[in-house]
Amino acid sequence: MSVKIALLGFGTVASGVPFLLKENHEKISQAAQDDIEIAKVLVRDDAEKQSLQAAGHDYNFVTNVDEIIEDKEIAIVVELMGRIEPAKTFITRALEAGKHVVSANKDLLAVHGSELLEVAQKHQVALYYEAAVAGGIPILRTLVNSLASDKVTKVLGVVNGTSNFMMTKMVEEGWTYEDALAEAQRLGYAESDPTNDVEGIDAAYKMVILSQFAFGMNIQFDQVGHKGISQITPQDVSVAQSLGYVIKLVGSIVETESGIAAEVTPTFLPKQHPLAGVNDVMNAVYVESIGIGESMYYGPGAGQKPTATSVVADIVRIVRRLKEGTIGKAFNEYSRPLQLAKPEDVKNNYYFSIKAPDATGQILRLAEIFNAEGASFKQILQEDSDGQFASVVIITHQVNQTQFKNLVEKLDSEPNFELLNTFKVLGE
Amino acid sequence: MSVKIALLGFGTVASGVPFLLKENHEKISQAAQDDIEIAKVLVRDDAEKQSLQAAGHDYNFVTNVDEIIEDKEIAIVVELMGRIEPAKTFITRALEAGKHVVSANKDLLAVHGSELLEVAQKHQVALYYEAAVAGGIPILRTLVNSLASDKVTKVLGVVNGTSNFMMTKMVEEGWTYEDALAEAQRLGYAESDPTNDVEGIDAAYKMVILSQFAFGMNIQFDQVGHKGISQITPQDVSVAQSLGYVIKLVGSIVETESGIAAEVTPTFLPKQHPLAGVNDVMNAVYVESIGIGESMYYGPGAGQKPTATSVVADIVRIVRRLKEGTIGKAFNEYSRPLQLAKPEDVKNNYYFSIKAPDATGQILRLAEIFNAEGASFKQILQEDSDGQFASVVIITHQVNQTQFKNLVEKLDSEPNFELLNTFKVLGE
Repeated sequence: MSVKIALLGFGTVASGVPFLLKENHEKISQAAQDDIEIAKVLVRDDAEKQSLQAAGHDYNFVTNVDEIIEDKEIAIVVELMGRIEPAKTFITRALEAGKHVVSANKDLLAVHGSELLEVAQKHQVALYYEAAVAGGIPILRTLVNSLASDKVTKVLGVVNGTSNFMMTKMVEEGWTYEDALAEAQRLGYAESDPTNDVEGIDAAYKMVILSQFAFGMNIQFDQVGHKGISQITPQDVSVAQSLGYVIKLVGSIVETESGIAAEVTPTFLPKQHPLAGVNDVMNAVYVESIGIGESMYYGPGAGQKPTATSVVADIVRIVRRLKEGTIGKAFNEYSRPLQLAKPEDVKNNYYFSIKAPDATGQILRLAEIFNAEGASFKQILQEDSDGQFASVVIITHQVNQTQFKNLVEKLDSEPNFELLNTFKVLGE
Repeated sequence: MSVKIALLGFGTVASGVPFLLKENHEKISQAAQDDIEIAKVLVRDDAEKQSLQAAGHDYNFVTNVDEIIEDKEIAIVVELMGRIEPAKTFITRALEAGKHVVSANKDLLAVHGSELLEVAQKHQVALYYEAAVAGGIPILRTLVNSLASDKVTKVLGVVNGTSNFMMTKMVEEGWTYEDALAEAQRLGYAESDPTNDVEGIDAAYKMVILSQFAFGMNIQFDQVGHKGISQITPQDVSVAQSLGYVIKLVGSIVETESGIAAEVTPTFLPKQHPLAGVNDVMNAVYVESIGIGESMYYGPGAGQKPTATSVVADIVRIVRRLKEGTIGKAFNEYSRPLQLAKPEDVKNNYYFSIKAPDATGQILRLAEIFNAEGASFKQILQEDSDGQFASVVIITHQVNQTQFKNLVEKLDSEPNFELLNTFKVLGE
C-alpha cells in the first residue's frame, strides 16, 4: 500500500514533485520503503483545473481544501502556495487533522513558524521545510544531522538569487544597479516590485530560520537588520575591486559573548573567500564552527527542480519515519533561549566612502574623528580630486556597532564631509 | 543512564572526540537524547598508556581489545587506528559481539567495506563512517538523506588535501612539483613516502566509497583509474592559466548510458568552476544531479577536530537510533548492480602538450592525426620556438576513452613528435 499525499497548489515547484517521484521512483522507494502517490491536488478554481487538465495534467484536482483535510487516507500535505494566507490556515488545519506537512514557504515559517511547530508538536505530526532556505541546498537537514556534534559560531549566506545575479552583473561587468535590475526583471528573476529581493527582506526571512537551526535560537524577523543593494554605486564596486574585495548581499548570524546578532547587508568579501565566487543566481551558506572549522554548502537557491528535490527529500523522510514509527521527532530539536548580542560585542571592519573638500588637513581631520572613536584605519585610498572635491575611502579595523553608529553620526554632522556610503567588510 | 563507547586508538583524531563531547555536551545530549561516556580506550602498549597518563589523559586505558569486545556495557566501538590490520579484525569482532561501530578508516572501508557491512547487517548493528571521505565535510550523510529524492549523474571531488596544497602552490605561486612536495613534507601534510597522496591512491579510495553513496554501485578500487600530479610541469600550469584553467587533482565518477566510470587524474578546471577556488588543504565534493542540478560541499578534508566532528555525528546518530529502536538501518541503503561504462561512452576534452620540430607542415600533420581519430580542436596554442623545436598545446573537443587512447598511441609512435603530457579538461 502506498502513502497518499496531497499538493496544495500546482505552480512551478509543485509540478517538479511528480517529475522526481517518477524519474527517481526506484531510489525514492528504496529510501522511503514505500510508494508515494499524489492522491489530490488543490487548485484555486475550476478555471485553473480545466486549464491544467487541458495541458495534460491528469490528477485528482480539487478546489476545496476540505476534500483534502477530511480525507483520512491522505497522510502528508505538501504546501506550495506561498504567502501567508490561506497557506497558514490550511497548514494549521492539516496538522490538527493529524496530517504531516511539508512546506517551502519561508515567509510563513520565518514569521509564524513557532506557532505552527507548536501545533505540529501537539498533534505529534511532522512539519518539515528544507526547501524554505536556499531551495536546492540541503542546509537545514545538514545542520540538524551532521552538525549535531558541532557548535556553530558564525553563518554567512548568499541566499537571495535575484540580488546575487544583480551584484554579479554589477561586479563582473560594471553595470549600474538600475541596469542590473532591468535585466533581472527581463529574465523573470525579479518581480515588478523587487523590494523583497533587493532590500534584503527575503534574505532576512532565511536568516530567521537559519538562526533556529544553527544556533537553536528563535530570533524574530524584526530583530534581523536589513539593508539592500540599491545604494551601491559603480564607484563602490570598483574601489572594492581595487582593494581586493567583491561586494555581495550577505546575510550573517554571529554568536558573541552576550548572544547572537543577525543582519543582511551588502558586504565586502575578500576575493579569496569561498563566498566571493558564488555568482549569478547561485546561493551558498558558509558556516564557521568549533569542530569542522570552515564549511560551505553551495547550490541553486530557487527553481522548480532544485526546490522540488528538497520537498521530496522531506516527503521521503516522513514516509520512512512513518514506517519506523518515529514520526514524532521535530525537524529541528536544537533549542536555547534567545539572547541578543550587545551592540558593543558585535564587531566588524567597515568601509566609509567620503567626499571631502580638496584642501590641506582633510585627512588629518578624518583621522582625528576616527581616532576619537577608537577606530583605526586598515586601508585608505584617496583618488585624484576634480580640483574641488576628493574622494576618500577608508576601511577600518574592527569596530563595534556602537562605535560604527557614532562614526556615521559624526561624519554626517561635519559640514565639510559628505558620507557617501558605508558597508560592512569581512576580515579580521 | 549514559551510552558507553570505546575508542580504538588515541591518536590525533581520537583525542578530538572527548573535546567535542565536552564542549558541545548540551547540544549533543539534546540530539542524542542520552549522555555519551568514553568507557575505555585501547592503546598499543603500557608505554603508550603511561605516556598518555603522564600527559594528563584520565581514561580507562586498556591494551587488550578483548577488554572492550567482552565488555557487555560498551555499545559503540569507535575505530580510529587506521590501516587494514588489526583494525579489520577488531571491527569484525566488535560487530559480531553486537556492538555498533564508527570508523574513519577509508582504506579499510574502500577495500573491505562490503564484507564488513555484511557482518553488520547480519548482526543488525550499525557501521557508520562519515569521516572516511573528506573528513569534516558531511557528504555521505547528505547523499543518503538529502539526495534520496535526486538522481546523481556526476561527482567531482577535490578530496586529497596534501595534493591540493601542492597544486595550489604550483598554480598560484609557480612552484615546481619538487618544491611543493618538500614544503608539504616540512609542514607535516605529506608523509616521507608521499605516494598515496600524490599518485591519487588516497583519492581513489574515496571515489570507491562515494560511488556507493552517490550511485548505489559498489565499484572496486582497481576499477578506479588513478594518475598523480608528479608529472605536471610549470609549463603545463602556465599554459593552463593562459587558456583560462586551473589544474587540480580531481576524482570523478560519471554515469553514462552503459554504466559508471571513476578515475582520479589531474584535471584542467575552468577558472569559474566552483572547484577551481578550492585551495590549500581544503576539500570539496561537487555533485551534478537531475533535481538539484549543481551543488557543492566544501570544508576541511582532514585534521583533528573536523574529522572528530564527523565521527561524533555518527555516534550521536547511533545513540539516537538506539533510543528510537531503529538501529538496524544501514548507513547507505542505495544499491544497484555495478555496471561499468564502456570506454566509448566516457567522453572528455583533453589537453595534449607536444614537442614538435620547428618546420613547415607540423600543425598540418597534427591536424591529420587528430582528424583521423574524429577528434577536433577546441583550443590550440603554439609558443615561440627555440629555433629547433616548437611547443604545441592542443585542447580537444569531447573524445571518448578509446579515441583518446588511440591518439596517445599514434602521437607516441610518430618519430617527429614528442608527447610531453596529457590531461583531462573539464568542459563541454
